Amino acid sequence: MPLARIALPKGKSVQYREALTDGLQQALVETFNVPQDDQFMLLTEHAPADFVYNRHYLGIERSDDFIVIQLTVSDTRTVAQKQALYRRIVELLAERPGVRQEDVFINLVEVRPENWSFGFGEAQYVKT
Amino acid sequence: MPLARIALPKGKSVQYREALTDGLQQALVETFNVPQDDQFMLLTEHAPADFVYNRHYLGIERSDDFIVIQLTVSDTRTVAQKQALYRRIVELLAERPGVRQEDVFINLVEVRPENWSFGFGEAQYVKT
Amino acid sequence: MPLARIALPKGKSVQYREALTDGLQQALVETFNVPQDDQFMLLTEHAPADFVYNRHYLGIERSDDFIVIQLTVSDTRTVAQKQALYRRIVELLAERPGVRQEDVFINLVEVRPENWSFGFGEAQYVKT
Repeated sequence: MPLARIALPKGKSVQYREALTDGLQQALVETFNVPQDDQFMLLTEHAPADFVYNRHYLGIERSDDFIVIQLTVSDTRTVAQKQALYRRIVELLAERPGVRQEDVFINLVEVRPENWSFGFGEAQYVKT
Repeated sequence: MPLARIALPKGKSVQYREALTDGLQQALVETFNVPQDDQFMLLTEHAPADFVYNRHYLGIERSDDFIVIQLTVSDTRTVAQKQALYRRIVELLAERPGVRQEDVFINLVEVRPENWSFGFGEAQYVKT
Repeated sequence: MPLARIALPKGKSVQYREALTDGLQQALVETFNVPQDDQFMLLTEHAPADFVYNRHYLGIERSDDFIVIQLTVSDTRTVAQKQALYRRIVELLAERPGVRQEDVFINLVEVRPENWSFGFGEAQYVKT
């Protein structure tokens, strides 16, 4: 159910991008109870002029390898779960593909469970 | 008022993309009471490495022609309207350009009516 | 904290894009009390077939230079602040880079303050 939009600098290898999406999915499985095969992720690669970010906001030193992860999810998680998700994402992406923990920006957009259709035009999460 | 973001595989024809946006708009008009000329849609084309999706989640068999439709809309619709929208989108896109009903992923993000400006810096949906 | 997604026609200069992001940030600082260095903006450039918009909706005449600004922000602003933001964005972008006030579409997506992580996997806006 999460729909992930990942913005990253242009020119990263396919292996790098696979490691990103693998790690992000693993963090969602562990902390948000997302099923392993519930994975839907869109990546966009940005040239520097199309990727504007402050390199020091909140005293965090961001590099050329900065990434933005925006996740649309159902509004069923606690604050503690969200904090666990953020921590786990940066841990896993630091291991593989090796993203600095300063370089991971995460934002959650929450929607009602009825706001998803995974195919066939059905609202699969509506209880009937 | 809806703002549509449509992600699709790279390389589809202009005709294919026109049929997608036509059908989506028609479904919004019929089920969400969107005015015919209230159409704002952004398409992004993704290479396989930038378009990650599970091909079997919930037992739905997705193909290379999978598309993701994310719609930002005002939070004024019922669950029944949302279900009608999903059904109508897949019906219309199956007719033209011929998208398999398994290959249509839809997500709604809801916002307040005051959260839109259509030009001139005015919040056109704020009642005064 | 705002995450801005700006969609614009393909082929604008780097100077044009810098003026867009500068003006948008200035409007956020003035009307939404966003810190000057809290700037995170993603631009996507769209060919005509990937940028579908009605040229007359609500009687507003849109040109080839139409832009869409979607801002994800914390849900802490009043309607009056949102109206001030819209007005200030179109004023500043009219000055530089010279966008017609008819050509600016703005949408806000609001999220909880806990829904942001700016680095290190921490939820910096959660009060502890």
